Amino acid sequence: MQGQVPRGYIVHTAPVGMLGDGRDDLCIIASQVPARTAAVFTRSRFAGPSVHLSRAAAADGTARGVVVIARNANVATGDEGERNAAEVRDRAAHALGIAPEELLIASTGVIGRQYPMKQITTHLDNLAWPPPGEADLGTAARAIMTTDTRPKCLTARIGEATLTGIAKGVGMLEPDMATLLTFFATDALLDGETLDAVFRRVMDTTFNAVSIDTDTSTSDTAAIFANGLAGPVGVEEFEQALHSVALGLVKMIASDGEGASKLIQVEVAGARDVAQAKRVGKTVVNSPLVKTAVHGADPNWGRVVMAVGKCQDDLDILPENVAVRFGGIGVYPPGPDEDDRRASVATYLKENDEVVIGIDLGIADGEFTVYGCDLTEGYVRLNSEYTT
Amino acid sequence: MQGQVPRGYIVHTAPVGMLGDGRDDLCIIASQVPARTAAVFTRSRFAGPSVHLSRAAAADGTARGVVVIARNANVATGDEGERNAAEVRDRAAHALGIAPEELLIASTGVIGRQYPMKQITTHLDNLAWPPPGEADLGTAARAIMTTDTRPKCLTARIGEATLTGIAKGVGMLEPDMATLLTFFATDALLDGETLDAVFRRVMDTTFNAVSIDTDTSTSDTAAIFANGLAGPVGVEEFEQALHSVALGLVKMIASDGEGASKLIQVEVAGARDVAQAKRVGKTVVNSPLVKTAVHGADPNWGRVVMAVGKCQDDLDILPENVAVRFGGIGVYPPGPDEDDRRASVATYLKENDEVVIGIDLGIADGEFTVYGCDLTEGYVRLNSEYTT
Repeated sequence: MQGQVPRGYIVHTAPVGMLGDGRDDLCIIASQVPARTAAVFTRSRFAGPSVHLSRAAAADGTARGVVVIARNANVATGDEGERNAAEVRDRAAHALGIAPEELLIASTGVIGRQYPMKQITTHLDNLAWPPPGEADLGTAARAIMTTDTRPKCLTARIGEATLTGIAKGVGMLEPDMATLLTFFATDALLDGETLDAVFRRVMDTTFNAVSIDTDTSTSDTAAIFANGLAGPVGVEEFEQALHSVALGLVKMIASDGEGASKLIQVEVAGARDVAQAKRVGKTVVNSPLVKTAVHGADPNWGRVVMAVGKCQDDLDILPENVAVRFGGIGVYPPGPDEDDRRASVATYLKENDEVVIGIDLGIADGEFTVYGCDLTEGYVRLNSEYTT
Repeated sequence: MQGQVPRGYIVHTAPVGMLGDGRDDLCIIASQVPARTAAVFTRSRFAGPSVHLSRAAAADGTARGVVVIARNANVATGDEGERNAAEVRDRAAHALGIAPEELLIASTGVIGRQYPMKQITTHLDNLAWPPPGEADLGTAARAIMTTDTRPKCLTARIGEATLTGIAKGVGMLEPDMATLLTFFATDALLDGETLDAVFRRVMDTTFNAVSIDTDTSTSDTAAIFANGLAGPVGVEEFEQALHSVALGLVKMIASDGEGASKLIQVEVAGARDVAQAKRVGKTVVNSPLVKTAVHGADPNWGRVVMAVGKCQDDLDILPENVAVRFGGIGVYPPGPDEDDRRASVATYLKENDEVVIGIDLGIADGEFTVYGCDLTEGYVRLNSEYTT
């Protein structure tokens, strides 16, 4: 059961006519009892009013849930956009019978367009509490989609407790402090400090390790809600469960990158420290020339060393100490069997939808793995034609 | 006359069978008398042996010219690659009757393949001095091409003196300290210190202001040779001429970016300083979502503010002070005539091959202009199919 709703949560989705196509584009996930929260947000200088409101709401570590408006970012919309964000949040909270500061708001989609406020407020004002609920968070995962081709939703059990996460990608996704949108609901009981620490650790190695196109959203928001109704859980067990759900969502996001046909996993080892490993990994997974080579199953491994070389300030990266492999096939340092290696890499790239590029920097033992996708004509087509 | 050879220079090109297609892929430009030089190089950690040899040769400010091998980068080729680079340089210098350290060497193309040494050395060993010369540097511009679709060559006159520049792009082009390959030959007389200062200033606002795909070459080299045969020139006049030739070459490179259909010029003003203006400009011109929007003539200006927002550490960038325009059409801050603006921008993007995006940060008076190109299905096709 991939979208199990943890105890005490209500899930509501509805079409409010954002693009006039009848698709669900409003979504509320909220605990019926008070809950703890931890959240991270985009660092964009153009973060929208949703991010500002949510950051303030989550600051004290308590919030019950989130209202999401999909397919309109409400960013760069001036004072009117700010008033609209507050009004949507306030009316949703009112419908839920909770205080506005107990509710986060998130919004993604086109930048620079005002919300269709009349449809949204009419819908919210007519909601009864509890609003007509959904039995499955998969419906919520579908309602928050923009250019995603499939909903992303995973559930894990920790003893008596349930943890379900949903996420949406998929272009404009170079998270730094956060991802695009991902929300986790659990009925596990954790103290606030532990929840926050665990959440940040997990985000760091999962959602902060994925890149689609280096562009950073103005709306990135990741939050977890924990209402405690299932009682206490083992912290380690909880962290493992959260990591596994988050990593699963990340892989779904990367392989659903706009136009993507292959998931690319770059495993960096032998780095001076984790930060260097992450920097090198991101540089490689974001290189347009690496991404197109993977797309074309072109065994042009030179583009990987080119990309490593872009870390110009890492003076301890020395070409003579670096090793590069595709899957299990070593390609650098060079050898006399160069033609055979290229043929093997071409076959490896052709036959695998999940491509692993391994890089050993030969410096110390810092490691980090990042996730991304190939760059295809489909990405260009989708983003050239995206209707505003 | 776009490729005029300045006094005292010899230009030699020949096919040495790099890809077996009979195209010229060896090129020598050299002064018959001693000359001054200034040069800048890639900062890649995987810079090849050509870059190392040339950096050493140019260090004392004197060199007569360069030998270029096109369509093979000789990078990540180990000890054998290092020996080969030195041997090609030495034999070319021997053929020219000059000392090896008077000659730079440059090489671009596929990474990880050894040179076809037999063809190269046979050709060089049979060269007489002076070797059979070309009357035009346009031939050299053609001989150094890899995926360029057209040669890039411009000439300017400074009084009695001539200055001719050639350049090649076009993918893997996010120069930091330099460009891919660009060489300038002049018979003007300048002292070494002036030549170096003028050259670096000009490179900074021209070749260091162009981006194609954020990838940085392992082979970037920019050099100028000045043999003084035309006598002294006004320094200001010379700098203007060099700037105009270099900027012309940069625009040719950007509009010949792999698969490119439009030149994008991002003019940043109102910045704290030049460095911030450059950072913001690069972020915008490199954004895949901005590049695809321009390609599709999609008036999705929100992607420009998204890209500006990526400068997360520029805390003085405040959305309420920023203004964005496409050509002469203001799009941000938002206004009530949003639909009309989008329609005007769509028309502007459709009708212009050179697109200007203007950004005013509203902080102080720092300015910088960067150059790039759109991202097209042609880029993806070319780089997925590029044969190794």
